[in-house]
Amino acid sequence: MVKGLAAIAGEMSGEALPLEQHEDVHSFVEAALRTKIGPLAGKLHTGRSRNDQVATDLKLYVRKAIAEAAAGCLQVADVLAVTAEAESATAMPGYTHLKQAEPVTFGHWCGAYVAMLLRDAERLLDALGRADELPLGSGALSGTPVKIDRQALAKALGFARPTASSLDGVSDRDFAADYLYGSAMLLGHLSRLSEDLIFFTSDEVGFATLPDAMSTGSSRMPQKKNPDVLELTRGHAARAIGELVGLLALLKGLPLAYNKDMQLDKEPLFRTRATLAAALPAIAELLSGLELDRTRMRNAASADLLLATEVADAMAARGIPFRDAHRAVSARIGDAVREEKTLRELGPSAGNKAGRGAISITAPDLEALDVDRALSRRRSRGGTSPVLVKRAAIAARKKIALVQRRLP
Amino acid sequence: MVKGLAAIAGEMSGEALPLEQHEDVHSFVEAALRTKIGPLAGKLHTGRSRNDQVATDLKLYVRKAIAEAAAGCLQVADVLAVTAEAESATAMPGYTHLKQAEPVTFGHWCGAYVAMLLRDAERLLDALGRADELPLGSGALSGTPVKIDRQALAKALGFARPTASSLDGVSDRDFAADYLYGSAMLLGHLSRLSEDLIFFTSDEVGFATLPDAMSTGSSRMPQKKNPDVLELTRGHAARAIGELVGLLALLKGLPLAYNKDMQLDKEPLFRTRATLAAALPAIAELLSGLELDRTRMRNAASADLLLATEVADAMAARGIPFRDAHRAVSARIGDAVREEKTLRELGPSAGNKAGRGAISITAPDLEALDVDRALSRRRSRGGTSPVLVKRAAIAARKKIALVQRRLP
Amino acid sequence: MVKGLAAIAGEMSGEALPLEQHEDVHSFVEAALRTKIGPLAGKLHTGRSRNDQVATDLKLYVRKAIAEAAAGCLQVADVLAVTAEAESATAMPGYTHLKQAEPVTFGHWCGAYVAMLLRDAERLLDALGRADELPLGSGALSGTPVKIDRQALAKALGFARPTASSLDGVSDRDFAADYLYGSAMLLGHLSRLSEDLIFFTSDEVGFATLPDAMSTGSSRMPQKKNPDVLELTRGHAARAIGELVGLLALLKGLPLAYNKDMQLDKEPLFRTRATLAAALPAIAELLSGLELDRTRMRNAASADLLLATEVADAMAARGIPFRDAHRAVSARIGDAVREEKTLRELGPSAGNKAGRGAISITAPDLEALDVDRALSRRRSRGGTSPVLVKRAAIAARKKIALVQRRLP
Amino acid sequence: MVKGLAAIAGEMSGEALPLEQHEDVHSFVEAALRTKIGPLAGKLHTGRSRNDQVATDLKLYVRKAIAEAAAGCLQVADVLAVTAEAESATAMPGYTHLKQAEPVTFGHWCGAYVAMLLRDAERLLDALGRADELPLGSGALSGTPVKIDRQALAKALGFARPTASSLDGVSDRDFAADYLYGSAMLLGHLSRLSEDLIFFTSDEVGFATLPDAMSTGSSRMPQKKNPDVLELTRGHAARAIGELVGLLALLKGLPLAYNKDMQLDKEPLFRTRATLAAALPAIAELLSGLELDRTRMRNAASADLLLATEVADAMAARGIPFRDAHRAVSARIGDAVREEKTLRELGPSAGNKAGRGAISITAPDLEALDVDRALSRRRSRGGTSPVLVKRAAIAARKKIALVQRRLP
Repeated sequence: MVKGLAAIAGEMSGEALPLEQHEDVHSFVEAALRTKIGPLAGKLHTGRSRNDQVATDLKLYVRKAIAEAAAGCLQVADVLAVTAEAESATAMPGYTHLKQAEPVTFGHWCGAYVAMLLRDAERLLDALGRADELPLGSGALSGTPVKIDRQALAKALGFARPTASSLDGVSDRDFAADYLYGSAMLLGHLSRLSEDLIFFTSDEVGFATLPDAMSTGSSRMPQKKNPDVLELTRGHAARAIGELVGLLALLKGLPLAYNKDMQLDKEPLFRTRATLAAALPAIAELLSGLELDRTRMRNAASADLLLATEVADAMAARGIPFRDAHRAVSARIGDAVREEKTLRELGPSAGNKAGRGAISITAPDLEALDVDRALSRRRSRGGTSPVLVKRAAIAARKKIALVQRRLP
Repeated sequence: MVKGLAAIAGEMSGEALPLEQHEDVHSFVEAALRTKIGPLAGKLHTGRSRNDQVATDLKLYVRKAIAEAAAGCLQVADVLAVTAEAESATAMPGYTHLKQAEPVTFGHWCGAYVAMLLRDAERLLDALGRADELPLGSGALSGTPVKIDRQALAKALGFARPTASSLDGVSDRDFAADYLYGSAMLLGHLSRLSEDLIFFTSDEVGFATLPDAMSTGSSRMPQKKNPDVLELTRGHAARAIGELVGLLALLKGLPLAYNKDMQLDKEPLFRTRATLAAALPAIAELLSGLELDRTRMRNAASADLLLATEVADAMAARGIPFRDAHRAVSARIGDAVREEKTLRELGPSAGNKAGRGAISITAPDLEALDVDRALSRRRSRGGTSPVLVKRAAIAARKKIALVQRRLP
Repeated sequence: MVKGLAAIAGEMSGEALPLEQHEDVHSFVEAALRTKIGPLAGKLHTGRSRNDQVATDLKLYVRKAIAEAAAGCLQVADVLAVTAEAESATAMPGYTHLKQAEPVTFGHWCGAYVAMLLRDAERLLDALGRADELPLGSGALSGTPVKIDRQALAKALGFARPTASSLDGVSDRDFAADYLYGSAMLLGHLSRLSEDLIFFTSDEVGFATLPDAMSTGSSRMPQKKNPDVLELTRGHAARAIGELVGLLALLKGLPLAYNKDMQLDKEPLFRTRATLAAALPAIAELLSGLELDRTRMRNAASADLLLATEVADAMAARGIPFRDAHRAVSARIGDAVREEKTLRELGPSAGNKAGRGAISITAPDLEALDVDRALSRRRSRGGTSPVLVKRAAIAARKKIALVQRRLP
Repeated sequence: MVKGLAAIAGEMSGEALPLEQHEDVHSFVEAALRTKIGPLAGKLHTGRSRNDQVATDLKLYVRKAIAEAAAGCLQVADVLAVTAEAESATAMPGYTHLKQAEPVTFGHWCGAYVAMLLRDAERLLDALGRADELPLGSGALSGTPVKIDRQALAKALGFARPTASSLDGVSDRDFAADYLYGSAMLLGHLSRLSEDLIFFTSDEVGFATLPDAMSTGSSRMPQKKNPDVLELTRGHAARAIGELVGLLALLKGLPLAYNKDMQLDKEPLFRTRATLAAALPAIAELLSGLELDRTRMRNAASADLLLATEVADAMAARGIPFRDAHRAVSARIGDAVREEKTLRELGPSAGNKAGRGAISITAPDLEALDVDRALSRRRSRGGTSPVLVKRAAIAARKKIALVQRRLP
């Protein structure tokens, strides 16, 4: 029987199966086997039914897809971690509400996505761990009277153990939902990364340029380099939510055990796998080829508004209450904007005139207007100090390697 | 400072906070503390910002909610496992496509849901494991220049370690999505259970009656006992999908780091927690109080159509090819339906007249028309044999206890 | 140019386009045209850009798909209306909470779905009305300097008028969302119809049998007729929600005007159109071939519990307060259940013994235990009286014909 | 009875109803009425049941909410149309892929959103048109034996007619789904508007500043003006998708007629109404108070890259094939970038050196580098020419007024 099946597999590989004359793939295989080995083929489905075979095939497929997704995710994470290390000191503005908030480094930005992708990989591997039970042997729903060794079957097919309930075995699609959810989360994070990079590579921000191979031009506007890969990734994240919803809404109303609605679980899985197989390497390649404009990033990160808090902190270190220092610096920034100068150009102040006591901003206070100093002060764990960002990147690469070893 | 905060907590407990005059809860607490301990209150937020505090508070809340959900889920699982053991031999029809397919036992039905709920509890606990990093100390986004010991903070607040990236720390809401997803899956399974029980307690099926406290009557039709709890559970499952979608769609488009959109992450979490707090005990109580009509279940499970395969199997055991046996039994069932008799009443046949060889159904073959025999034959692991169902229930209760020990 | 394009269309029809060597379909067509008519082909895109062409093509496609969906929907509605007329007096139980509640007729059940499908067709036609503006001439985003007559273009392509804003013209996908929403609603109603029919054709209820062509058997259980078409319809309804979500989540985050994410709007539309093209005729065929067991339906609708309110109403008509009448009937039903008799078999009562006054149930009161009488009493518009159901069915068929005339 | 109800309404207005001792609001009203008018109160529900009353109340509520949403939507549209007229000639870059593409005007940008919001208002009004049938009189599901005039009831309650089927009447929630979908679309468009404005008000782009009342500061970074209203609107759009999904998933699996799941339809409606009541006026106020930096917008719109196509068009007008002209301009832009000059500074060219014929860019060609000229050339309907934008804005205001007249 094994020889016959191998022969069929050899003949069919790469070809569409001639399923038209057969009820389904199971009938086709049995018929094909019969032409090879005769009536023994009738024993092919001994101790099996379509329901447990379908559940088994799908679980084998999804386990593979989960492992692939985790592997691809870790590859992107590794590209980001390598960049995080290389760019650990590359100053750029950090944003909240899409407004410049505080200086960070590009390496730190990369590190944030490494953290997300590591969670994504672990989420997928957790799902793989819960998908470790083989449904084969559940029969149509009640188990099988044939004496089969389900534990041995499980081992042979790479599962930890057989499912504990045959009724659950044929109707469980949790593993498919877990895969779609894990993919939606992963693509959601890549969508946020894309959102950031589309902004960074916009004409107005100009922190980076996309590699030519990862962008497309315009027939009428040849100067344009459109961030297609990033936009498609963002779009795929939206569709992934839709695929998940489709399955959850399908499953929630089903009685036990198998129902035909479940046949519609397959296409979303196929589509999601194809999407990830295309998107993950594309993002990795795009990140590898990103050209940074480090001068522009640094200049933007050095703006007075981003460093004003540093001056107030310096004053606070001299014993001035932070709130008062803050108020004095704010007033000084108002002056600077009016006179179209920088705080440094304006120089020290002898205390503002609004009569709120004579709080002066001294020359040493203004030394704080230094982006590198601002960066290196953030030395608590997880902070943007270049030393820490580098250390975190190295630790992340180790963790990525560790998680990679958990892949099947 | 600790004393001052404790005093405020004591005064405020159970009351709505007077937040109107304050920008937010953080400002309120600082102001209230100032009235207790004076200017020292100004140091309350040292090394902190709203962004990392909000992330920390939310994570503490969600961790609690996840643990609660897992605990409630395991309690329902335990009620089901207890019932599975007690009803391990209670015959009933098993369904596929909502058509009677093969006999199973009510204990086996319970066991299928135990398997689902165990996966749900493990999914939630896996999420808890990934939510084990403390964001406090991430500052607004770039970390803090204050020398704080984030590892010690993490330990003190019950986390395994601090987050690896401050940028990720303030913008990560994965744990919230994981909770909503875990809840949607759990409610999805309870929705399937509800779908089954609504069918089982319908007038036509009548396998069980709901406890009075868990159903409502009708003002015009006093004979009705409506399955409100089950229908609401089904509805909650639908809404849980919506809550998840709302959050995933919100997060996917956000640039780093904090954005105000995230403020809308809270209400879906509050609602989901309240829903689970109501639904899980209600389902547990309903299951405990379910009254089975075991005679009706057994009769339904003993119908010829459900046991026809048994006769064919018996004939196959005599050496008749299964397909031929099957055809003979099908023809005999046709006779039975026409003559409005059961197969037993019809008795043995000397071979059908359609001339397909003289395949006879013998009296010993007809012995197979016995639901207990059919049940006990399904002896492969996970099958519906009462012995196995009981054993599986005992194993499940042990596993539930083990998982309960993993709860924080 | 027109001749050249016609020639290309003739050659290519039914074949996959050889797009590999071309950037996109627009470039391909221009190149192919160049081989036919020479350099004049370069004028093909005069006053056009890819962005407005893509929007135009998609809108033409969706308008066709909407019209198709509405037409298919009305065909199912008509089958149901025809059945509603034919079965206007076929008694069956009406359900709330899946419990038998009051008698209705099968025609009335059909009419409920006719009402839903009429709303669906109108919803689709309303969407068509809002999709009546042509984007062509919007250029890439800002309009075109070429003097084209957009009003004439609109007329030529079957639109009422050109879009009012070129920026909106190239980025509007409302029509696609409206189509997906309209399809989700339509499939949602068919999912409810499927849910009902799966229940009605279950072994326990047995009100109807599916036509053989619309159900599949089981290899091991030949007696089974699985409601595959109904289950798939239910599943498609779930997926349609997912398709809608995917598009809404994609669109919500996009800045103006065209973004590449929009390229992913196409596949959900193609899939939805294919789904409806398969599902609507299948449901229509299934409904046409449904075999009713009118005796079983009538018996179920004649049960005491369904008619108890009729007796109380009869007593109320004699002047007994309804609440008291109701209580007396309920007590009598309790007696009947205990004695395993019907109310009729039990006969008139001289007043219950619980001492709540001597409210007697008389022989004329018991005449109310007649399903036809119960049905014909519901004579307010929209009610289940056979006369009204027939009249409503005839009115519905007229309305269907009217709406069909609005189809393009 | 009417007097009694009016008295109760007067006493209760503004207060939470004391529902604890009553089964539901219907029982409470009847009991309260009984204390006012005695036993006649028992006739309050004559010809009614909870099911049709609940459907009626909800439909009345949703009709009001739809009208409110449409009215609020039109108010935002009007603010935009007023601004479109005032800023019809305010040049700014138009974007595709978030890259500067072609010059448009701010009035044109406003006009795009006017077009979307007009579709939203019409979508809501279409939904209102389909929600014009009164369910009252449907009884519990089968109609009522009481002779009521449903047509008169419909008129009295502001509906066009009664529902055609009582079974559909009590179980139809299409109007609720239509409202949630219409709200999701409306919020989706406002989310896109928010996305644009967050970008326009970013530090890097700086085209506009938010009114102070519509933005919040940061305790540590007082220079920041965070676009909270816009971010919340974006977040509300995400949640609106979730609310819609929750209802669609709930409805799709329900058998006819009423099921308790439907009780969960209310909260999403309440929440959506509250969201729109807050969001629409906030967006209108924000738009009214937006401060434009017209100089910065104009400068950005005047960049060579945005006007390069104009030069090529001018050359094409001289008879040079567009593609060749385009190539020559592209090469010249390359020179300009290398020499850090503008095309004007670089001056006319005698033909590029790459030997592709001597295509020269003449001084008159360079006249095309004029943003006003570029804008005014887009004169086809819907284009960005200031004259057309103004005309379109005036037309839009008229259309808004027309649609407002359709509001109930």
